[in-house]
Amino acid sequence: MVVKLTYFAMSGRGEPIRLLLSYSKTEFEDIRIGTAEEWQKLKPTLKLPHLPMLEVDGKTYFQAFAICRYLARKAGLNGSSEEEGLAIDATVDTLMDMITKIIPAYYRPDSEERSKLLKALVEDTIPFYLNIIEKQLEENNGFLVAGKLTWADFVVLTVGTYLPGLFKVDILADFPKLKEHHQKISELPGIKEWIEKRPADPEDYRTLFF
Amino acid sequence: MVVKLTYFAMSGRGEPIRLLLSYSKTEFEDIRIGTAEEWQKLKPTLKLPHLPMLEVDGKTYFQAFAICRYLARKAGLNGSSEEEGLAIDATVDTLMDMITKIIPAYYRPDSEERSKLLKALVEDTIPFYLNIIEKQLEENNGFLVAGKLTWADFVVLTVGTYLPGLFKVDILADFPKLKEHHQKISELPGIKEWIEKRPADPEDYRTLFF
Repeated sequence: MVVKLTYFAMSGRGEPIRLLLSYSKTEFEDIRIGTAEEWQKLKPTLKLPHLPMLEVDGKTYFQAFAICRYLARKAGLNGSSEEEGLAIDATVDTLMDMITKIIPAYYRPDSEERSKLLKALVEDTIPFYLNIIEKQLEENNGFLVAGKLTWADFVVLTVGTYLPGLFKVDILADFPKLKEHHQKISELPGIKEWIEKRPADPEDYRTLFF
Repeated sequence: MVVKLTYFAMSGRGEPIRLLLSYSKTEFEDIRIGTAEEWQKLKPTLKLPHLPMLEVDGKTYFQAFAICRYLARKAGLNGSSEEEGLAIDATVDTLMDMITKIIPAYYRPDSEERSKLLKALVEDTIPFYLNIIEKQLEENNGFLVAGKLTWADFVVLTVGTYLPGLFKVDILADFPKLKEHHQKISELPGIKEWIEKRPADPEDYRTLFF
């Protein structure tokens, strides 16, 4: 099986897919589009004008979380009942609600307005959502759903890794369960090795070209 | 089994859930929050500050598409292989990409800028996405995935019903397969009866309170 993941030169929506592939010991080519020229050349050749794109033996798949769910089902990481599947999906969608609130503010050029918006995100919006996650970890024995590893854990790991870099603040400081979770998931076999070898994200995501 | 769906007094993200419940002949209480006062009273009592919320025998579930996928799996409408599940999820996510592009322009107050943005949506953005759907219908024997009914068909039905009302344009006119699909899904048992009895959406969604 030949597996290729094409995404931009950052973690973002590509990272939970990379984590799932790494955890399930699936070798994959990690293709990173790093310049506007590369992207402008690639974009018109794609079925949908966005990334990530997963290729498995020449067949292409789009939509990051649809791909995650698919890989997770194959790897036994989508829960073991309909209710667990629902809880996993709802957790991921709630995290994405948070990200959707962060992105338009983050990608503004520097200004007083931007600083104000980022401050509100760090003080109100993000703690609101991380509190929900913290409670879920408490109720599920240190995992997100059903007291065991699911793909939602990899989405939380990604968010917890890159939010501090985005805001230059130790955002997990007030969430001990989340910190513990972060450590635990980072050390899983396959994940640990991937984290050691993966390229770093840029200091400021606004330097990327999209 | 006591089933209640709480959503705003409109179709939106609640409607595919209502369609799934109607198609699978599940009786449900269709609770519609119609005023800002009602919403301000309800909101602080919820686990997450948004709707729809599904209640099944007193247990509450959030996140519209997580709920759809759950109901669809129970009703046998989530495809019959991992690949079909992925194709369904990717179709829904792509439609939501389109909706995400529509909403910020639509909800502006009237202005020249708004008219310009809506024109670009009707002339470029929406046809781009509906073309993808039209092709999929062609390739899948008049359905979205695998030549048979799945919950993606109910999401497309919802989008095809309410986009024309949003833009006051017959947006499906250039998409014969989509028109045919719309007719076919509207006449399914359970769906037909629901469509006949459901309340109408507002003329202008900006008159709603959120």
